[in-house]
Amino acid sequence: MSAENDCRFFVPGPTWVRPAILREMTRPMIGHRSAEFKELFKKIVADLRPLFATTQDTLVATCSGTGLMQASLANCVPRRVLVTTCGAFSERWASIAESLGLEVDRLATAWGTATEPEALRDHLRSRRTQYDAITLTHNETSTGITNDIATLAKVVREESPDTLILVDAVSSLGGIPVKFDDWDLDVCFASVQKGIALPPGITVFALSQRALAKTEKTPYRGTYFDFMQYKKHANTDGVPSTPSIPHFFALAAQLDAILRKETIEGRFRRHEAMRDLTIHKTATYAKLASDPSHASATVTALAPVKDPELIRNEMKRRGYTIGGGYGDWKTMTFRIGHMGDVPLDALDRMLDALTEVARA
Amino acid sequence: MSAENDCRFFVPGPTWVRPAILREMTRPMIGHRSAEFKELFKKIVADLRPLFATTQDTLVATCSGTGLMQASLANCVPRRVLVTTCGAFSERWASIAESLGLEVDRLATAWGTATEPEALRDHLRSRRTQYDAITLTHNETSTGITNDIATLAKVVREESPDTLILVDAVSSLGGIPVKFDDWDLDVCFASVQKGIALPPGITVFALSQRALAKTEKTPYRGTYFDFMQYKKHANTDGVPSTPSIPHFFALAAQLDAILRKETIEGRFRRHEAMRDLTIHKTATYAKLASDPSHASATVTALAPVKDPELIRNEMKRRGYTIGGGYGDWKTMTFRIGHMGDVPLDALDRMLDALTEVARA
Repeated sequence: MSAENDCRFFVPGPTWVRPAILREMTRPMIGHRSAEFKELFKKIVADLRPLFATTQDTLVATCSGTGLMQASLANCVPRRVLVTTCGAFSERWASIAESLGLEVDRLATAWGTATEPEALRDHLRSRRTQYDAITLTHNETSTGITNDIATLAKVVREESPDTLILVDAVSSLGGIPVKFDDWDLDVCFASVQKGIALPPGITVFALSQRALAKTEKTPYRGTYFDFMQYKKHANTDGVPSTPSIPHFFALAAQLDAILRKETIEGRFRRHEAMRDLTIHKTATYAKLASDPSHASATVTALAPVKDPELIRNEMKRRGYTIGGGYGDWKTMTFRIGHMGDVPLDALDRMLDALTEVARA
Repeated sequence: MSAENDCRFFVPGPTWVRPAILREMTRPMIGHRSAEFKELFKKIVADLRPLFATTQDTLVATCSGTGLMQASLANCVPRRVLVTTCGAFSERWASIAESLGLEVDRLATAWGTATEPEALRDHLRSRRTQYDAITLTHNETSTGITNDIATLAKVVREESPDTLILVDAVSSLGGIPVKFDDWDLDVCFASVQKGIALPPGITVFALSQRALAKTEKTPYRGTYFDFMQYKKHANTDGVPSTPSIPHFFALAAQLDAILRKETIEGRFRRHEAMRDLTIHKTATYAKLASDPSHASATVTALAPVKDPELIRNEMKRRGYTIGGGYGDWKTMTFRIGHMGDVPLDALDRMLDALTEVARA
């Protein structure tokens, strides 16, 4: 194991970043209206398209995933939104929508379960309400559940064809397949400190033509997150306001490595192997906290026999950082982030140490 | 001249960044809810206080300066704002306010001149309008003018004591004195790629108690830029959503260097010396484009005898990057950024090359 490969950091984002990628951030500064930046930007948006599996617009904003949640709502929802919830991060959609003064309906399912397509169909059929948009959370980071976006989006298209589909892919993109065009999504975004394995600081997103058409008609959407500004600048010189240039250097290098070195398919297989290994090796001392049929390939929430806090502290003493429980599950679970560039053998070594600690 | 000191980049932001500061960005990732991050955050906000000359709240957001412009308006202006303009960036306040649906009045002065305190007094006296806030731009980056914020703020307090004062210090903070408490300001912000000499990606800001009280009563201010969330998290664990952690590492190191190595006063003296040197050495072939009595210590806009574009291209061939004209002054001026960590001797060498090029 070389220093370049020495991962001991297993929280569900920010995730471990390869030293070579961190070094990309030390390139000398360039202007964001320069020819060099334009080239860099063009390369990035082109390489984001296969990651989102789209031929439509891919873009980058300097903010966290929460920023793009707000952006999606401010641009695409003049009035009314349906929020599907199954944990802490899917609930964040609702609180942001309320903070913007929107009318919010919720379709909630219990923590640890996935949103049911038929429950969504029933909800849409039983309401005479026309929603401007519905929000979906691809991978719920607080519980380790992956929602079936393909089927959920199909239900929306069948029952309410004019409703936009806004998807949080924060902890899925780069680790779990996202098919923006096939699934017929309208906005989909991911901050980069999860499956893409960069330090946090920017968020990548894809926009449908439908989303842009809706944005154009939405008044008072502000400036910093205005999708029309993003689209306009992407067509000319890059981004609307000064971006985090070091992140752009790192993102270009990382997308190149994902697409041309590991390959996207290889990356998805490694994530599935990490999930299976995690569930297998923890089975004797911890219960999988969420529905196994929707177990996430990027994060696993576990309810151990021993106190999770004791386990985390002892692991910390051994040099390993694992994630704590989140929100309603804070005291009863811990979480293992197995996402981004985490090497399978590093995860395996950590799980051996964890077994010693958790069974002691 | 060592590699650590080899500055050939003189645009008015993003500015040259010392290699040692870039290397701070390569520290291994930490969680933003960890004890390490809390310590880092506490150190940063404490070191920001002397930079803003305040004992009130200092904070950090992951966004550009444009983000904090929008934040100031969304949090502190329920309805009506007066925007003082004297160039492209001061005008941005107005366009953002309009994009949020606010009522906007403008007090404009010509490009290249500073906002007149007595004109502001007349405007406030002649209107029966009660403004929620007035916006001021400390240093207008498009023209190289520094406004007299001390006097302008005093006029506002005398004529309209309940109006909040929102100040863009993007290209002044860290290069030109900002006295948040003495001047009795309410919101003041600066992105870090100018006087603070970090790569772009985050924005630092100060808030008065009055600004927080106003924010609390402003409805539908959103979540990502909500000052109440910033205040709440600053009191407990840091920041509301995942921040650009590499920038926090770099900011901590840079604030330490500014306060304890160069000293703030030494930094201001170096910036004044850079302004004086720039004006002196360019006098024979270029006209100072703006009012000399308000000449900025961080950026100088020059109208040369020769075509500015030819000059910039020839300088580029010699390895030097200087800034282009901006907005209305795009074709008739070029700009020299002399801000942040630019060494005086590096500026001097560049100005010698510039003289050869511009007089040839």
